[in-house]
Amino acid sequence: MLTYTRHVTIEWGDCDPAGIVYFPRYFAMFDASTTAMFSKALGMTKHQFTRHYHFVGYPMVDTRARFLKPTRYGDEVVIETKVAEFRRSSFDVQHHLLHNAELCVECFDTRVWAAQDPNDPDKIKAKAIPEEVIAKFKAA
Amino acid sequence: MLTYTRHVTIEWGDCDPAGIVYFPRYFAMFDASTTAMFSKALGMTKHQFTRHYHFVGYPMVDTRARFLKPTRYGDEVVIETKVAEFRRSSFDVQHHLLHNAELCVECFDTRVWAAQDPNDPDKIKAKAIPEEVIAKFKAA
Amino acid sequence: MLTYTRHVTIEWGDCDPAGIVYFPRYFAMFDASTTAMFSKALGMTKHQFTRHYHFVGYPMVDTRARFLKPTRYGDEVVIETKVAEFRRSSFDVQHHLLHNAELCVECFDTRVWAAQDPNDPDKIKAKAIPEEVIAKFKAA
Amino acid sequence: MLTYTRHVTIEWGDCDPAGIVYFPRYFAMFDASTTAMFSKALGMTKHQFTRHYHFVGYPMVDTRARFLKPTRYGDEVVIETKVAEFRRSSFDVQHHLLHNAELCVECFDTRVWAAQDPNDPDKIKAKAIPEEVIAKFKAA
Repeated sequence: MLTYTRHVTIEWGDCDPAGIVYFPRYFAMFDASTTAMFSKALGMTKHQFTRHYHFVGYPMVDTRARFLKPTRYGDEVVIETKVAEFRRSSFDVQHHLLHNAELCVECFDTRVWAAQDPNDPDKIKAKAIPEEVIAKFKAA
Repeated sequence: MLTYTRHVTIEWGDCDPAGIVYFPRYFAMFDASTTAMFSKALGMTKHQFTRHYHFVGYPMVDTRARFLKPTRYGDEVVIETKVAEFRRSSFDVQHHLLHNAELCVECFDTRVWAAQDPNDPDKIKAKAIPEEVIAKFKAA
Repeated sequence: MLTYTRHVTIEWGDCDPAGIVYFPRYFAMFDASTTAMFSKALGMTKHQFTRHYHFVGYPMVDTRARFLKPTRYGDEVVIETKVAEFRRSSFDVQHHLLHNAELCVECFDTRVWAAQDPNDPDKIKAKAIPEEVIAKFKAA
Repeated sequence: MLTYTRHVTIEWGDCDPAGIVYFPRYFAMFDASTTAMFSKALGMTKHQFTRHYHFVGYPMVDTRARFLKPTRYGDEVVIETKVAEFRRSSFDVQHHLLHNAELCVECFDTRVWAAQDPNDPDKIKAKAIPEEVIAKFKAA
């Protein structure tokens, strides 16, 4: 299955007064990698593929990250992202962030495929992941 | 030991195009709760207590969050935070975020007490948590 | 007309490696103040009042900020916000951020009252501000 | 003088419940462009050049942005950044953000070259911009 690799520059604005990445920023980077991976596999932007498959997104239900080494502004890091498993309406994603080939952060996500609740447009509910989506990941 | 409770309004800018909190924002909220708890226990701001105890902060080494129910802009939520355990140079923090008395997010953090590395001012290394800090938490 | 005053603690995560607020964060604070002011004047959350008045929000069209003195984590600041002028479909907001009674940041915003474009649900367009909204501000 | 051009993908996490970029995020993008421009002109990361020239950064003192057209997640935008003027200890930067060759946001910044205050290490004060820095921009 597709491993999506992205090169990211750590920005001044990603860092805190200790001079290292403020950890919530890593989750935003991993989220962007997840979306970039879906865009690559499906050949559409998230704006396009949420409309194409009639869903609102893949909200996070569980995430765990380990921070092994800090990174700082100016560092050029590599983020490797892959889907570890697709289930009926949820899936697991794994991220590795490396600097100078050393693993700095690893993260394991579980997300759910979510659509507007037909009974309440202000709510969202889980929906089966389209088989076409899974097939496109396997083919990528 | 001290449980620190904080009332937070979910802001428009905390939310994503699905209209719910963009999950990395929860980690920033929990981080602010951790600091508010330390400020309360130690009677100083973080700017003051990092100088008072000669350290640079308590970077995250491991965090896990479960997102049970989404929250959205305008929601008034409650965040309950406590130290689950102090060890020599690391400690565990637990957060519960509730809306209308329902648990929406729970998070478990492990952080390390970090000081400038005396051999390299650009690096940080773990340092023993002062006994005075732990005593003040127990007394709070 | 209503001046809305809010007390905010500057957080570690709001600050950059120079130890002072990363300036884009001020705009998020001012945005939250604008919404808190509308919520107060209208007696509804933004989630409620955007539905009640059938619009999507008040996107920024022009903003200017002057940063006179830095603030840092742990600082307790005061943000004073008011509508300087309502026009047909746009309005001006002014913010003052003070620390120890000294003006640290001032900001002038122009925003537009925006609704979904009836011809293209993916687009937004300006819409007249309801007279009731303006009346409620004048009465507040 | 150097015009620095950067291609940026608008991320889901940059956008608000109206589905368009939450405007404070543009300032973070422009800040990253300013730093990328300095890194290119000086041949060093910000972590390196702040140490090399013995300063702490270039805090914003005045910024003004006009938001002409919204951008949304998945949009590939171009940011063009240049220094409009260098003065003794401050400088002006101008940014244009374009999508499909249309100007969406323009921004004008004034920043100050800042060093630690020798009389108070917790404070910062303006310092003359090194002539070498200006010369490298002119040569770039």
